Amino acid sequence: MPKTPIWKSIAATIGDEIAKGHYGPGDKLPTEAALSARFGVNRHTVRHALSDMAERGLVRARRGAGVFVEAEPTDYPIGRRVRFHQNIRASGRLPQKAVLRIEERGADLSEAAALEIAQGAPVIVYEGLSFSEGTPIAHFISVFPKAPVPGLAATLGEVTSVTEALVRNGIDDYVRAETRISVDHASATQAIHLRIGSGDAVLKSVGINRTEGGLPIEYGTTWFAGDKVTLTVAPDS
Amino acid sequence: MPKTPIWKSIAATIGDEIAKGHYGPGDKLPTEAALSARFGVNRHTVRHALSDMAERGLVRARRGAGVFVEAEPTDYPIGRRVRFHQNIRASGRLPQKAVLRIEERGADLSEAAALEIAQGAPVIVYEGLSFSEGTPIAHFISVFPKAPVPGLAATLGEVTSVTEALVRNGIDDYVRAETRISVDHASATQAIHLRIGSGDAVLKSVGINRTEGGLPIEYGTTWFAGDKVTLTVAPDS
Repeated sequence: MPKTPIWKSIAATIGDEIAKGHYGPGDKLPTEAALSARFGVNRHTVRHALSDMAERGLVRARRGAGVFVEAEPTDYPIGRRVRFHQNIRASGRLPQKAVLRIEERGADLSEAAALEIAQGAPVIVYEGLSFSEGTPIAHFISVFPKAPVPGLAATLGEVTSVTEALVRNGIDDYVRAETRISVDHASATQAIHLRIGSGDAVLKSVGINRTEGGLPIEYGTTWFAGDKVTLTVAPDS
Repeated sequence: MPKTPIWKSIAATIGDEIAKGHYGPGDKLPTEAALSARFGVNRHTVRHALSDMAERGLVRARRGAGVFVEAEPTDYPIGRRVRFHQNIRASGRLPQKAVLRIEERGADLSEAAALEIAQGAPVIVYEGLSFSEGTPIAHFISVFPKAPVPGLAATLGEVTSVTEALVRNGIDDYVRAETRISVDHASATQAIHLRIGSGDAVLKSVGINRTEGGLPIEYGTTWFAGDKVTLTVAPDS
């Protein structure tokens, strides 16, 4: 029987302890020195074990801070029905939102094209952060045409759920027509909000929601923290 | 009427020239010195114009190499029907594939789970690169169960299209059940294949295709070069 390398056995042991919840998501692992002492090996061997675990996405080294257990990314379904609170609850986690801005102004060129209104026509801008179990997972900016929902800005100040705010303004249902997903890099302020590094990769999703009658009602851009979210596409959802 | 800053006017002029095709995607712009001379301004003003254009995604500075016109990302639809050649042709571009590997071996644990076969059961592995207009846009690894399509490895050596190869092995149709999209970082070899930097952000897509009867027939992972592709999700496709 071939001998298992010692680094592999160390990686397996720590991996088991993570699986059992001994070290939870976001927890810092003991230092290399502590692990060397615990397993009776030199630091080179510990480093080999840790870099193997990092490659498999189990842990992540943060320069100067130590090695941390990776959190399981939150699954986020992208489909016809895009409902933030519902999506996060479906993954068994607690959804929350933080409002950064609610304002009214004139539509710029791209907003006007997306919402099929005139440039400069009044829109309501809703910017905020989405949380899953207290962790910020996304930064969003949604733009709504003011004409069909003139009271929306006030409602969004009372209820953070877009679905609920639209219902209260007479829009009972809406669906996502198309979503465009690309890679972007976190701006400095986005990085602070999402608790990631400036320039870190983010998943950018751009979509237009339409009422049942086909009227564009929301033009939304969301930046998901790359290592905290997996977007799932189930064609029939 | 407020005066337009000179950098803004320079950015608009170069932007127009890009729009008119004077400078095409991937072209190098003239040097800062040349642009300073052309517009009769100092380099600081030219830099201001270029950094504004870079922020709007029109150009990209590559350290030590100059400033280049950004290529428009290729749209890549993710839906029930995932057909590479068809997808790229739909965006008016020429699709090509390069085969890196076709091999037969036993399924590992995750492949077995995805394909609903026993661990160690024979699978066919097809690894390659996808090109759009000669530019490598994706690296893929597809794993097929051998039992229902025993001749597939030989066929894939003759036709690069998975759809066509499956048809020749008796699988007339298949659909994508679910796709999972996350951010990953290019490995060193992936970076060489995709002509991007090692560690650059890539869009990782993992999906399982099933025959009309529901049999898992392909377990595929694709890494798209982040700045060359926009994934589009049209729920009804």
